[in-house]
Amino acid sequence: MFSIGIDYGTNSVRALVVGCDDGFEYGTHVYNYPSGDQGVLLDPSDPLLARQSPADYLKGLEESVRGALAEASKHKAFDPQKVIGIGVDSTGSSPLPVDENNGALSMDPRFTDNLNAYCWLWKDHTSWREAEKITALGKDERPEYLAMVGDTYSSEWWWSKIWHCLNVDRSVFDAAASWVELADWIPSVLAGVKAPADVKRGVCAAGHKGLYNPKWGGLPDKEFLGKLDPAIADLRDRLYDTAQDISVPAGTLCPEWAEKLGLPEGIAIATGAFDNHLGSIGCGIEEGMLVKVIGTSTCDCAIVDLSKSDTIPGVCGIVEGSILPGFFGIEAGQSAVGDIFKWWVERVCQGGPDLHRELTEEATAMKPGQSGLLALDWNNGNRTILVDQRLTGLIIGQTLYSTRAEIYRALVEATAFGARAIVERMTDFGVPIDKVVCAGGIAEKNPMLMQIYADVMNRTMLVTRSAQTCALGAAVAAAAVGGSHETIGETTRAMTGLKDIRYDPIPENVAIYEELYGLYLTLHDGFGGITRDSDLSKVMKDLIDIREKVRG
Amino acid sequence: MFSIGIDYGTNSVRALVVGCDDGFEYGTHVYNYPSGDQGVLLDPSDPLLARQSPADYLKGLEESVRGALAEASKHKAFDPQKVIGIGVDSTGSSPLPVDENNGALSMDPRFTDNLNAYCWLWKDHTSWREAEKITALGKDERPEYLAMVGDTYSSEWWWSKIWHCLNVDRSVFDAAASWVELADWIPSVLAGVKAPADVKRGVCAAGHKGLYNPKWGGLPDKEFLGKLDPAIADLRDRLYDTAQDISVPAGTLCPEWAEKLGLPEGIAIATGAFDNHLGSIGCGIEEGMLVKVIGTSTCDCAIVDLSKSDTIPGVCGIVEGSILPGFFGIEAGQSAVGDIFKWWVERVCQGGPDLHRELTEEATAMKPGQSGLLALDWNNGNRTILVDQRLTGLIIGQTLYSTRAEIYRALVEATAFGARAIVERMTDFGVPIDKVVCAGGIAEKNPMLMQIYADVMNRTMLVTRSAQTCALGAAVAAAAVGGSHETIGETTRAMTGLKDIRYDPIPENVAIYEELYGLYLTLHDGFGGITRDSDLSKVMKDLIDIREKVRG
Repeated sequence: MFSIGIDYGTNSVRALVVGCDDGFEYGTHVYNYPSGDQGVLLDPSDPLLARQSPADYLKGLEESVRGALAEASKHKAFDPQKVIGIGVDSTGSSPLPVDENNGALSMDPRFTDNLNAYCWLWKDHTSWREAEKITALGKDERPEYLAMVGDTYSSEWWWSKIWHCLNVDRSVFDAAASWVELADWIPSVLAGVKAPADVKRGVCAAGHKGLYNPKWGGLPDKEFLGKLDPAIADLRDRLYDTAQDISVPAGTLCPEWAEKLGLPEGIAIATGAFDNHLGSIGCGIEEGMLVKVIGTSTCDCAIVDLSKSDTIPGVCGIVEGSILPGFFGIEAGQSAVGDIFKWWVERVCQGGPDLHRELTEEATAMKPGQSGLLALDWNNGNRTILVDQRLTGLIIGQTLYSTRAEIYRALVEATAFGARAIVERMTDFGVPIDKVVCAGGIAEKNPMLMQIYADVMNRTMLVTRSAQTCALGAAVAAAAVGGSHETIGETTRAMTGLKDIRYDPIPENVAIYEELYGLYLTLHDGFGGITRDSDLSKVMKDLIDIREKVRG
Repeated sequence: MFSIGIDYGTNSVRALVVGCDDGFEYGTHVYNYPSGDQGVLLDPSDPLLARQSPADYLKGLEESVRGALAEASKHKAFDPQKVIGIGVDSTGSSPLPVDENNGALSMDPRFTDNLNAYCWLWKDHTSWREAEKITALGKDERPEYLAMVGDTYSSEWWWSKIWHCLNVDRSVFDAAASWVELADWIPSVLAGVKAPADVKRGVCAAGHKGLYNPKWGGLPDKEFLGKLDPAIADLRDRLYDTAQDISVPAGTLCPEWAEKLGLPEGIAIATGAFDNHLGSIGCGIEEGMLVKVIGTSTCDCAIVDLSKSDTIPGVCGIVEGSILPGFFGIEAGQSAVGDIFKWWVERVCQGGPDLHRELTEEATAMKPGQSGLLALDWNNGNRTILVDQRLTGLIIGQTLYSTRAEIYRALVEATAFGARAIVERMTDFGVPIDKVVCAGGIAEKNPMLMQIYADVMNRTMLVTRSAQTCALGAAVAAAAVGGSHETIGETTRAMTGLKDIRYDPIPENVAIYEELYGLYLTLHDGFGGITRDSDLSKVMKDLIDIREKVRG
């Protein structure tokens, strides 16, 4: 038996064909979104805007699955008729407006020139004002809503984006029959759903971004939404009442898409979820394990049993069933990780893959603290702990001799410090973290980064076996709803595993990073607004002292 | 009548042949120091070290003067027999150890491999520990010494450097018959001085860097110096008792160098002074004028009558007669300006002159505040106000879309904010500044920078006529001691003037820079240690607000 996982990323979509018995990956195919700047539609006059084309998604669905099946078919053991399910994960919160037929509004000729009718990509921050207002209103009126998202509602999320659309482009808002998360829309397309009301909504997106919780009857109440805008309260009726976890299918493959993809009609479609949540299943998540998906941004997932508290300050979301049914799913993360390195190497230093390699090589030869540099990892805001998209990057400690490789390393270290802050927040609030399992392209390809993370966090870093855990997790979910095993736990254990590689902390590096982390926290707490009376007088001098100590 | 000015810079030496009647420049020649990295001897293991080769100086003396004379000789009106004087300026404090014949110790075969026997270039900061100790001891024991150098003794200066040499390399210290500032050594070489005791010392270097003041009998007393080290107290006897201003010659041209240079034996040699001090004479300095020499670093000079106070907190030096006889000379400055742009373009972005041009063009098209970036100008420490070489650079406000041209502009703006801080400190303490006259390669060639400075300081920026004011100022001093005019004031007025160009502040830019300067001061005072309870919580958000306002 086989299943297919489809992973909608920031720049491309990937399909993966997997064996349900052992997780063997029979075929994979990546489709790069053709529109915009590497798949992201930008507005040169507004650096906060990031949209994506639903037409790219549909074209990518067909291309990626057919490509993966073609590759799988080179194996004698593979037979497309034995595929028992399809699962989908995507970035998020990435909502798109749909028409009354569940079609993407951007594909309506009236709106093809209007970016507001496209998918509002997770990293779109145009709605920061709305997010601030939702936070303020929530604090006053519905503290229980905010408690579940770390006390701050983000501009990356569902309601901020939809409300911003209403505020800036009434024509799009009014034309939208409903709004759907990308992670729910693709399964509904595969299932041939022709009305927004019939789209199955996953509890992962609903709970983490939509303020959905059965405790208060699903989505936020109309009275609250009406205080944003009466039109938002009205919209609630055109959204959904319940959301489901991945133990329930989203539907079955419709004839039209069965034919397009060359797959059996009627096989199970798993309920969609965010990339990192299914990715953590692809990493074999269990209690006590932190799964770090390290890519353009980072997502840190853990699960904890339902007896624990369901709030941790500054952690974006803790949602029952958002990862594994029967556990709270905890999602934290950094708004930019790989994107920061990419910014430095490609945008600032104007290099390509060769320069990434060159700088990584140079940086690998450096000792912690040797450059005297320190950076904050906030070029795209701070998603966890500060939950503030209106924070920006910072680099300190430059001399006239600082090199671009030193700055590159400082940026990697900055992301490691940010990662440590998240782990410490989780353990401070009772989430057990006994092992860290990493996934994502960077975890695979950058031993320098992995060693720095091990040294900064003083924890062993493990690497998951699959190079495409999100797609694999989607395939696990597909296998589970397809009935390959008794339970989802069994399915996960059968289909996932670890690589034969580990990064152990090096004690002398740990000691230096302990000092640097203290300085990072001074900047983090000061610029992040946690303290209002920072003593910065020693920061530059301490960096020089550390530099001199390390250089000898 | 003609005179010659010789300007020893950081990377090269320049000679200039000038007409005494009208300042017409008959010939000039630049000699690039052949040793080290663009003339600076570095130690890869210690970014604080910067030395220079005295042999380069002597070779450069001959080459530059002969080259300038050769060029001048193309003019019929020129006759080398009518040269009436030679003047010299140099970087500083740049002391070198000399032997009992006034020869550079580095040219002794025993020491050619030892960088400690070379000239300790102004920007050498290896002696920061000694500087801190001199500051601490001075505060306790001789507050009057420190008061004249802004309450902090710098690692760039005479005693720090000589003491550090004693601490790290006794062999060099013991072999030195004396130490001489480069600005004094070259005139002594031209005058054929064969014993350190006969070297005429200029009050500019002595007063600004050597803690020399007739009020307390010249150099610091032996009791104080003995607390640094008894060997430093002993050295005092081998230094000097009096220092002279430029109204007195340093000697006359000796036969050996008259022949080498092709000039009349016995013509006047002016007393040496630092580049920026003679440069301000080359800019026509008078009371009410600030002269900014903008180059790799910046020097800001003004003069004020002797009725005013002779101390301004954080201003490195106020010395009677250091610029014009009969006035206090005030010297302030920034440790790196052009060097910061060079760092960014050449070291980080790995470009050359084309990239300097390209980034300048892009940055010119930007509005103030548009990038959301803010930087500190401390990559080489802070010379004025904080007087702290152990400060470093900082860049804040980066997004994933920040470009290298935006950062380039932010660095230019950072130097403008630093320049404004200096002007405000001077006027706060009663120094009249009615006009700002700029000199140096950057003032000549970078209208973007000049406009930014005008907007940040809200003052008109004027540009001096000569492209080589330091050498011109040295030529003015030479003409004055050669007797071309009645007074030095008359000589200055005859030989200097302004360009027909001015940069007036643009009101809307002034308003935005006013806001940005407030944020600059928050960072300046916080990281500089002026305040210990900085509220940083709004810095990043204010930058975003300004950015959004400017972008509209």
